[in-house]
Amino acid sequence: MKTNLSFIKTARDKIQLVNQLLLPHKLEYVTCHNGNDVAKAIKDMVVRGAPAIGISAAYGMYLTAWEMSKKNKKLSADVFKKQKQVLDAARPTAVNLTWATSQMLVTANNFFAGEAGKSKDANLKLLLALYEKALEIHNDDAERCLAMSNNAVKYLVTKYPKEKYNILTHCNTGSLATGGIGTALGAIRLLHEKGKINMVYADETRPYLQGSRLTAFELLKDKIPVTLTVDSQAAYLMQKKLIDAVFVGADRVAANGDVANKIGTYSLSVLAKAHRIPFFVVAPKSTFDNSIENGDKIVVEERSPSEVLEFGGKSVAPKVPALNYSFDVTPQVNITAIFSETDTLE
Amino acid sequence: MKTNLSFIKTARDKIQLVNQLLLPHKLEYVTCHNGNDVAKAIKDMVVRGAPAIGISAAYGMYLTAWEMSKKNKKLSADVFKKQKQVLDAARPTAVNLTWATSQMLVTANNFFAGEAGKSKDANLKLLLALYEKALEIHNDDAERCLAMSNNAVKYLVTKYPKEKYNILTHCNTGSLATGGIGTALGAIRLLHEKGKINMVYADETRPYLQGSRLTAFELLKDKIPVTLTVDSQAAYLMQKKLIDAVFVGADRVAANGDVANKIGTYSLSVLAKAHRIPFFVVAPKSTFDNSIENGDKIVVEERSPSEVLEFGGKSVAPKVPALNYSFDVTPQVNITAIFSETDTLE
Repeated sequence: MKTNLSFIKTARDKIQLVNQLLLPHKLEYVTCHNGNDVAKAIKDMVVRGAPAIGISAAYGMYLTAWEMSKKNKKLSADVFKKQKQVLDAARPTAVNLTWATSQMLVTANNFFAGEAGKSKDANLKLLLALYEKALEIHNDDAERCLAMSNNAVKYLVTKYPKEKYNILTHCNTGSLATGGIGTALGAIRLLHEKGKINMVYADETRPYLQGSRLTAFELLKDKIPVTLTVDSQAAYLMQKKLIDAVFVGADRVAANGDVANKIGTYSLSVLAKAHRIPFFVVAPKSTFDNSIENGDKIVVEERSPSEVLEFGGKSVAPKVPALNYSFDVTPQVNITAIFSETDTLE
Repeated sequence: MKTNLSFIKTARDKIQLVNQLLLPHKLEYVTCHNGNDVAKAIKDMVVRGAPAIGISAAYGMYLTAWEMSKKNKKLSADVFKKQKQVLDAARPTAVNLTWATSQMLVTANNFFAGEAGKSKDANLKLLLALYEKALEIHNDDAERCLAMSNNAVKYLVTKYPKEKYNILTHCNTGSLATGGIGTALGAIRLLHEKGKINMVYADETRPYLQGSRLTAFELLKDKIPVTLTVDSQAAYLMQKKLIDAVFVGADRVAANGDVANKIGTYSLSVLAKAHRIPFFVVAPKSTFDNSIENGDKIVVEERSPSEVLEFGGKSVAPKVPALNYSFDVTPQVNITAIFSETDTLE
């Protein structure tokens, strides 16, 4: 299945990234001609979401090769090593980023070490190999989105059969953050394709408003019925029986099934449990971290108080302290099921 | 006990109202010389909060008499009847407003019907009677705030003894909304006076941000430790054992003890229950409506979607529908105790 809004447009000589800083007011693209352009876009938050960042960086490695090749500059293993360093430094906390650039570096190194690197049309072959690898990373993510969304939808319609569903979601987990239809938002898209969506309630998701700015925008573009709601209204919607299920993504899943995700996720899980509403997590295998025993072991960073005290650079509060945890931890007992590409964990 | 920030400054010939539209950036006063000035201030949302509106309107009735008297215009029962109509129309839904202007009208009518109305210094006597009545309404509200706050504090320190408390509150229930120290915020002020406050966590209270704009400002002015938090973070603070009790106000209390209050209140009650944290409502007798059997009978109005789609007057979302309930209903089973001036209802 397709979405009308991908975070990226690809071509032979460039990629164009949706400038997510301008959403939802303007749909504009930032054009990148090489890896350094991509690094800047990542640093500037033009592109966000772990998979989207990894995919952009992979194309960035390819584009550097394309540009140098066009300028008849010599390509070497060292060029890629250095380009990888620049890209990795653009968002040091993004695991997907270094994973993707490593894949690209290995492809380049293998090429230089092998026979193809010595052939007459070596440059062309290298460019093709790099482009194919970036495309593979991109397509692989799209397929994973589809697989986990399929798992989620199958489970929902089997275990909680209904003609049409009202779904509550939090933050942004869609095609602006991934290489495909998204994780939690992927499941919602698939439900809509099957004619099973009555309404998607999107939490605005303070403080960064990913729900208002990104999720509402994505769903509007795909003509999926969406209603925005302030985060604190979720409980009341549940009380009024307006919510059939909650779907969220995950930043990290611990070995015991505890889930770290955007602040407010834990709140929804407690509220869903109290109202006997199923609470689902849709997350790729790459977010499962078996080295972390349980949620207590996950370190929750605090972000800048300014996100709470200001809005769009404008102060909305006096100069008081503000607590701004970047995410919270939902214990597995509050989660009805976690869907990955391969498994459904109940 | 006192607060450093009252919504009103009174004098013989004027009242000055804190312009709450400019908070928290500027502490400016709007001066009112007569009832029409006060009606405008109410209409413009310069002053908000049911008790504060009623008190302002009472002084407005007096000021009209003062101004006309100074200009040697004839005072009659009809003048007050008409002034009451103008004031009542400024916020048709505010019960306290019509209650207060009725009290003032009765005072004027009694005066004209009695002997004093025929005396030589009739005007002076009328002005005194009106001023005294307005002051009585004002002081009465301050005393009620103190009485219910006292009930709340007594209960908390007896039933949940602790050296110092971390309190979570929602919306604004303080000296900007009432004639005294406030309701829920009154209890918090009293706790602080007794040295029993470690930290007040103030929900920002989307969509209108009364927590950021007003509560944080009030607490800062009174030097009470305050930390702002986005509404969806409350559950996580409870999970981390950072909250000892929740204190909120009430718009209306039904006969069975169900409470209508600012959207997000019901959510906090469910979360508090799940974390075994006491959940308290502080509300004057005037909000108890025994004609309403239970919460199901309370009609919850929707406010404009623009409050959700915008932030500080700036659009933050695409043009999608938004649900914006003005308040929600908390069932009495979720409430540990309700404190009024006279009673503690468990």
